[in-house]
Amino acid sequence: MRIDIISAVPQLLESPLQHSIVANAQENDLVEIHTHDLRDYTEDKHNKVDDYPYGGGAGMVLTPQPIFSCIEHLQSQREYDEIIFTAPNGEPFEQESANKLSISKNLMFLCGHYKGVDQRVIDTLITKTYSIGDFVLSGGELPALVMVDSIVRLLPGALGDSESALTDSFQNDLLEGPVYTRPAEFKGMEVPKVLRSGDHQKVKEWRFEQSLERTKKVRPDIYKKFRNEQ
Amino acid sequence: MRIDIISAVPQLLESPLQHSIVANAQENDLVEIHTHDLRDYTEDKHNKVDDYPYGGGAGMVLTPQPIFSCIEHLQSQREYDEIIFTAPNGEPFEQESANKLSISKNLMFLCGHYKGVDQRVIDTLITKTYSIGDFVLSGGELPALVMVDSIVRLLPGALGDSESALTDSFQNDLLEGPVYTRPAEFKGMEVPKVLRSGDHQKVKEWRFEQSLERTKKVRPDIYKKFRNEQ
Repeated sequence: MRIDIISAVPQLLESPLQHSIVANAQENDLVEIHTHDLRDYTEDKHNKVDDYPYGGGAGMVLTPQPIFSCIEHLQSQREYDEIIFTAPNGEPFEQESANKLSISKNLMFLCGHYKGVDQRVIDTLITKTYSIGDFVLSGGELPALVMVDSIVRLLPGALGDSESALTDSFQNDLLEGPVYTRPAEFKGMEVPKVLRSGDHQKVKEWRFEQSLERTKKVRPDIYKKFRNEQ
Repeated sequence: MRIDIISAVPQLLESPLQHSIVANAQENDLVEIHTHDLRDYTEDKHNKVDDYPYGGGAGMVLTPQPIFSCIEHLQSQREYDEIIFTAPNGEPFEQESANKLSISKNLMFLCGHYKGVDQRVIDTLITKTYSIGDFVLSGGELPALVMVDSIVRLLPGALGDSESALTDSFQNDLLEGPVYTRPAEFKGMEVPKVLRSGDHQKVKEWRFEQSLERTKKVRPDIYKKFRNEQ
């Protein structure tokens, strides 16, 4: 897989792409990630990439020219499965979106900018607008990093143990319950005996019950959906 | 405000804290952000901070000792309004959560680790578990950065223009509609005339209609809620 990320602040993207599972996946040639600085594509003599919004109001808007130049340049080199824009007014990004995108060959992300991007970019070039949640951020860089992480960890070989991704929250429609590790007793608090019993069937049942309980408590919406599907 | 972020991969946090609005807010003394490496607190002779889960299964779990040592050390220095854990099985983090947290004095974030953190930490030390969305990530670092960004940009003085935060998506219960900037015509595509009319009332009405339309199309759940509240 190849991923291109376009941003007005590409330096912000650096450290998350250089550590943990996303870094390993790049080292193991599972994914190639390239970041692009919008400023390298502007024809503005002051090197500007944003301007005031038409109709007034606060905040700056990314101008169309540098984005068109950058995306058209990339498109001239290869075909992209999706050109994704990150913005709070997009479709909700969910595990299923990550699953679908993880089988792509080439993905492009345009990071939204605080207050937005000229709509002509979105109407003409963007194939998907995703929001990672109902909150406002100063830019689309963190959402792009979140989506990239969720996609890259699904690539075959990205996780040390292939079983892991399948037992995650959302992959079986329920939230994960509690987990414990050594020591068996810490500050007077014990790990539940069932987990130390060696009885795999009982462990499985306990985990399912805990998952169910956690989901019911924290996410009644998911619990209800799960119940209806049984 | 002071924010402490505890992580097993603190290097991952670096670049997003050093750019854009979060960096400016630190330079202008609106917020002080400190990151802490769990490895500095482990008493394990091999410097380990995670171990296999009790009951079997894939993935590693963060052990309680380094987390207790780190959090208890920080708590001995000051009182924290919330000690937040980031995990997909948490309460949904939304704009209202950011609004509430933005009036805190001291916040602490414990970044979840792929596959989890020993439950005794969560039962004893954590005051809130938040999820930023229904997808799985390789760690809680990006979610912590997302929450920090959404909180810090609400601090008075963090944005260049105080009006901005109020006109964002979610602050008026509707998604934002399209925005446009110069040039008025680009590749044959024109900016809507109303935005260039100078008629503020018409601009306001157009924006409201566009907002309504966008919300209805992309987020029928929010649209329905908005209609019911009118």
